Amino acid sequence: MTNMEQWNDFKGRIWKEEINTRDFIQQNYTTYDGDSSFLEGPTEATDKLWDALQKLQAKEREKGGVLDMDTDVVSTLTSHGPGYIDENLNSLEQIVGLQTDKPLKRAFMPFGGIKMAEDSCKTNGYTPSPELHKIFTEYAKPHNQGVFDVYTPEMKKARHNKIITGLPDTYGRGRIVGDYRRVALYGIDRLMEQKQEDFDNCGCGTMTDDVIRQREEISMQYRALNDMKKMAASYGFDISKPAANAKEAVQWLYFGYLAAIKTQNGAAMSVGRISTFLDIYIQRDLDKGILTESEAQELIDHLIMKFRMVKFARIPSYNELFSGDPVWATLEVAGIGQDGRSMVTKNDYRILHTLINMGPAPEPNLTVLYSSKLPENFKKFAAYISVKTSSIQYENDDVMRPVWGDDYSICCCVSATETGKEMQFFGARANLAKCLLYAINGGIDEKTKVQVGPEYRPITSEYLDYDEVIHKYDIMMDWLASLYVNTLNAIQYMHDKYNYEAAEMALIDTDVRRTFATGIAGFSHVVDSLSAIKYAKVKAVRDEDGLATDFEIEGDFPRYGNDDDKADDIAVWLLHTFLEKLKKNHTYRDSEPTTSILTITSNVVYGKATGTLPDGRKAGEPLSPGANPSYGAEKNGLLASLNSVAKLPYEWALDGISNTQTISPGALGHEDDERAVHLVNVLDGYFKQGAHHLNVNVFGIEKLKDAMEHPEKEEYQNFTIRVSGYAVKFIDLTREQQLDVIARHAHETM
Amino acid sequence: MTNMEQWNDFKGRIWKEEINTRDFIQQNYTTYDGDSSFLEGPTEATDKLWDALQKLQAKEREKGGVLDMDTDVVSTLTSHGPGYIDENLNSLEQIVGLQTDKPLKRAFMPFGGIKMAEDSCKTNGYTPSPELHKIFTEYAKPHNQGVFDVYTPEMKKARHNKIITGLPDTYGRGRIVGDYRRVALYGIDRLMEQKQEDFDNCGCGTMTDDVIRQREEISMQYRALNDMKKMAASYGFDISKPAANAKEAVQWLYFGYLAAIKTQNGAAMSVGRISTFLDIYIQRDLDKGILTESEAQELIDHLIMKFRMVKFARIPSYNELFSGDPVWATLEVAGIGQDGRSMVTKNDYRILHTLINMGPAPEPNLTVLYSSKLPENFKKFAAYISVKTSSIQYENDDVMRPVWGDDYSICCCVSATETGKEMQFFGARANLAKCLLYAINGGIDEKTKVQVGPEYRPITSEYLDYDEVIHKYDIMMDWLASLYVNTLNAIQYMHDKYNYEAAEMALIDTDVRRTFATGIAGFSHVVDSLSAIKYAKVKAVRDEDGLATDFEIEGDFPRYGNDDDKADDIAVWLLHTFLEKLKKNHTYRDSEPTTSILTITSNVVYGKATGTLPDGRKAGEPLSPGANPSYGAEKNGLLASLNSVAKLPYEWALDGISNTQTISPGALGHEDDERAVHLVNVLDGYFKQGAHHLNVNVFGIEKLKDAMEHPEKEEYQNFTIRVSGYAVKFIDLTREQQLDVIARHAHETM
Repeated sequence: MTNMEQWNDFKGRIWKEEINTRDFIQQNYTTYDGDSSFLEGPTEATDKLWDALQKLQAKEREKGGVLDMDTDVVSTLTSHGPGYIDENLNSLEQIVGLQTDKPLKRAFMPFGGIKMAEDSCKTNGYTPSPELHKIFTEYAKPHNQGVFDVYTPEMKKARHNKIITGLPDTYGRGRIVGDYRRVALYGIDRLMEQKQEDFDNCGCGTMTDDVIRQREEISMQYRALNDMKKMAASYGFDISKPAANAKEAVQWLYFGYLAAIKTQNGAAMSVGRISTFLDIYIQRDLDKGILTESEAQELIDHLIMKFRMVKFARIPSYNELFSGDPVWATLEVAGIGQDGRSMVTKNDYRILHTLINMGPAPEPNLTVLYSSKLPENFKKFAAYISVKTSSIQYENDDVMRPVWGDDYSICCCVSATETGKEMQFFGARANLAKCLLYAINGGIDEKTKVQVGPEYRPITSEYLDYDEVIHKYDIMMDWLASLYVNTLNAIQYMHDKYNYEAAEMALIDTDVRRTFATGIAGFSHVVDSLSAIKYAKVKAVRDEDGLATDFEIEGDFPRYGNDDDKADDIAVWLLHTFLEKLKKNHTYRDSEPTTSILTITSNVVYGKATGTLPDGRKAGEPLSPGANPSYGAEKNGLLASLNSVAKLPYEWALDGISNTQTISPGALGHEDDERAVHLVNVLDGYFKQGAHHLNVNVFGIEKLKDAMEHPEKEEYQNFTIRVSGYAVKFIDLTREQQLDVIARHAHETM
Repeated sequence: MTNMEQWNDFKGRIWKEEINTRDFIQQNYTTYDGDSSFLEGPTEATDKLWDALQKLQAKEREKGGVLDMDTDVVSTLTSHGPGYIDENLNSLEQIVGLQTDKPLKRAFMPFGGIKMAEDSCKTNGYTPSPELHKIFTEYAKPHNQGVFDVYTPEMKKARHNKIITGLPDTYGRGRIVGDYRRVALYGIDRLMEQKQEDFDNCGCGTMTDDVIRQREEISMQYRALNDMKKMAASYGFDISKPAANAKEAVQWLYFGYLAAIKTQNGAAMSVGRISTFLDIYIQRDLDKGILTESEAQELIDHLIMKFRMVKFARIPSYNELFSGDPVWATLEVAGIGQDGRSMVTKNDYRILHTLINMGPAPEPNLTVLYSSKLPENFKKFAAYISVKTSSIQYENDDVMRPVWGDDYSICCCVSATETGKEMQFFGARANLAKCLLYAINGGIDEKTKVQVGPEYRPITSEYLDYDEVIHKYDIMMDWLASLYVNTLNAIQYMHDKYNYEAAEMALIDTDVRRTFATGIAGFSHVVDSLSAIKYAKVKAVRDEDGLATDFEIEGDFPRYGNDDDKADDIAVWLLHTFLEKLKKNHTYRDSEPTTSILTITSNVVYGKATGTLPDGRKAGEPLSPGANPSYGAEKNGLLASLNSVAKLPYEWALDGISNTQTISPGALGHEDDERAVHLVNVLDGYFKQGAHHLNVNVFGIEKLKDAMEHPEKEEYQNFTIRVSGYAVKFIDLTREQQLDVIARHAHETM
């Protein structure tokens, strides 16, 4: 059995003989069910550094959102020398490492697409290097060029008409979570050894395309690991061996993550489930008496500060979809182990406590893996932090654990992935609301009047007949699912070919499981539209071209979001039907198709491109985000709304079901402690029904309105809210999106 | 039906409605069975240009073989401005276009491998650009890097120990012949239209990896066509429309070929079967009275002059394998149509006549597609040119036509490919002689003493038993064939991925047939060794490690090359057996496996790495080239030797069976006309038996010895000889290779 001196006092055997972080955690963590009284405030160093960073952030906002950009260095693991928050405060930084050589300076990343990299410079007033233009036009082909080289006219049309939306063909797919803990636990040399062994065992000698591709990928991973050592060495650290103490563990792990964000500008760059793991190192040092609680909190504060600094160069169309500069540095706490033990440690407290020590912040995207079986103390503490900061989301560990085990990470906003054993092919979403209009209008787009879908016979009756609509919708969804999956096949192929995530995949098992993530937009509107057609009378109003562009609803009908099975049954049917249609299609690398109901802030842009729907939503209005009920649909209070969403089976939407709710503080109680207790009750009730996810905001609409009108007020500088799938500083949203957030229901009662 | 004014007077329909050069040729060519009396000598312009070029070639030789090199420009279709043989003689050049901006200046081509590109500079005293090093190391991965990223240790070992040899993993695979005639016949716009249509029809919408790859390739082809227009425009020509006359036809066609040699540094860059095609244009102009025979010859002379100028930057190890700077600009004349008509035109005479007008030259690699049914006049003329120049090879049209039709080209030295409808994955060769030693020594290499093959039980008896040897050889060939094919799978995959031949493939049908070419080295030695073991007694002499490193032969035995079935049956068995073993394996893109018996000049290098064989050949001595009998084996004269080779069925070696023979002038007659007649008799007799190929040299060994000792003599400056698969200036060979050529049998009698 291999034994390293850095592993002294650690228990277990399997994790020493194979790369197995989960086994290490299970053998060594100390569960904690006490309260938060042990926590320490920020150290002087933390205050100074955070102050310096806030000044930089203020400057960044002043400059229109971007502080500085690279224009002539291509970001690689070794492209930049070391960088620090403040040259004068270097010695205070317990955890070091920046994406570039300067804080908040955005790197130039052309492998996704040279035009995007250049546009992100130009729209921010920077001039990209003409040499790099030549290189990435003539010599090195980027992902984006590859995708557009193979798209069919039908794909381009569907994309242009926004029935397939937000595709990662002009930005990195992201959503791959390296097991960054491995760097700390094993050191790079052991990881390289393992990849060498995997390379030797890859294929039996018959060189099929699949084997060749995988062998090349392992080679690239191996080189990336070697480059990580060089990167760390530039900061004065030798990460070839395991981390010897808590500080090194945090630093080594962060270098792993830093490798990812230096090489990929992905849609989501999650940190993963690191809390319990790091607690083991901290607890060992606390037990040995070589670390104080204050020092432990400082390590965590400084690590979180680094996650708050992650920035990517982006283009306006990306910002429209995903407003507020998010990076989805998603990080989980809590959860229950498969043996039934709570995985909550003191470190979970420390991590949530950063929202107090350094105030609220949208990143990292803090996620509580919730179970009613979590220690009551911790549930209350998390709820308390929610009430105070509205910066946390909750996901149901009890539904995810049976599928993904007890060492999964959230790889984007809400999607689970088994840490270090899995990757996801991210695929944005299909607009099922628009698809319903295509079913009615024979494949002609209601906005552009272009024939986008197949030339099926349109519905010509004045009043819509439910059975006819369902039949036509069924065959139109068949078309859409097939086109959508095949568009994604092209994208994922080219991403692997031209923008492979070697650094992240180097920290994932070679024999990786691949999921093929799709998504649904416009969910609630389809449900309500079909309900209206079934339970009320819907008259189609046709324009001069015979297209149904408006609808008159006669009579009342049940709506999704009121715990009424008449509507909610349609919701369940819709999810299941679309998933089955997706599954019929060939998926790249035989990945497993999954779907999601989440839209992030893209619901606003998607809505703009979608005509009037039979549920009464008018053309151009935002779609309801994620799996949320439609605006104004929820008539029976928060709990009824939650009950409706909870009916959607997680097993049919393994990529996640996003639900965002805002609760007036008054609805939860008179003061924060009472509110926290009530919030715990809400969460317990919701998640016990098998619901997947909840974004919790605790504030009134008045505060939002005031913040929109007076963004300059000090109190709003770090005012963070949860939107569908991530957190954002409210003042960083566009006015349009702010209005959308305000338009959503803030529950005044339960 | 589309009709273009440039097509006036041309007959036929199908070729107008689809891209079909063959149909155009069949509908329009004028067969010629007259003699050579119509031919014209060089024009003054030709003399001046050829003189200028010869001066440049002399300077090139003075400078050690390379006149000039690019070090900081990556060769693409549009990377260089126009170039001319001599700035003062521009107006004399009927056909223009150089690979770079200066004559004989070699381009920098890093897509195959940056290290090779750099080494080729450095070994010639040039300093490659450090910027390009960075680009092709960090941003744009070359083919070579891809291959070495995926090789297994076993592959590297087999390669290092030279049991698999000459692999195109450090040089371009070449051997792809674009149908350059299409540029002249259709113009680029029509070709782009066709590729657009193919793109639209590629796949039914399901994006499998194969469909995605092909769609991307078509995109690249489309862009390459567009760039060809830009390249031609830089010389002042608009090739978007068809060529309107003979001069344009020659020029347009040459631009197509120029596109290939600007973008690929392949092992062979054949021109293809262009003679009959061009004759149609020339004949039309002659008939119209707008061109004279002298002007026609001038066009051909100038075109051939361009082919004589093709140069690539190469590395010493490549030059060792393929000595004398060959490029295999292979070009065919003659052949019989499937309807029985001779395809010989006046142009076939003109092309061979360039060897008189401008003297002998190794390039283009002139190939006569031979049939006894060719017009007697032409047969005699070709034989006469052979006797005069030793610069022609002959291939049997009667065996190739049934397989490849009547519009095939020779894509390398001797390998046929259907023009515009096929591509070849070139794969160099397996050393079957070394494999025999592995069979005897249990997979241990006789030179390096390393276990390279599987650890089978070695033969331990003092005298070799035929049945035991055959059994062990059989299973060792199984191993070798599998390893060899899979090594090639990796190479071809990476070549497609990183160094795709877009410009050549743009001039080939999208629905392309792919052959997977393998090859055999050491053929005659295996045959003779097995014959010795069977018919004589062979005692193994083992060294201190128990390896059989020498053999003592007791008694006489039949040898391949004497028309003795005892030996020749073993030859046929060997070919068939190895081919069957190759075919058992998965081949990249489901290509069709073929094999060849040809080694070019690499027989010298291969021989160096091969130990003593049971046929009496000593360690390190050159192997016999191609399918040639072993040195000294031919005891019964030329015809008996030819009979032995002719027994090898072409259908089992569709990639070619190369045979090179030197005949003393005296053996053929007293003066050249008589010699020509006799040579025709030899060719008729040989090819009627179904033999595939013959390189014909007509000179005595004394001339070779004199040339070796006195390379400075004027008469030897262009002294060209045929070696296995190509022609070479004798004085450009290394001394070692010159000695090898001299060692070969020069037949003094029939």
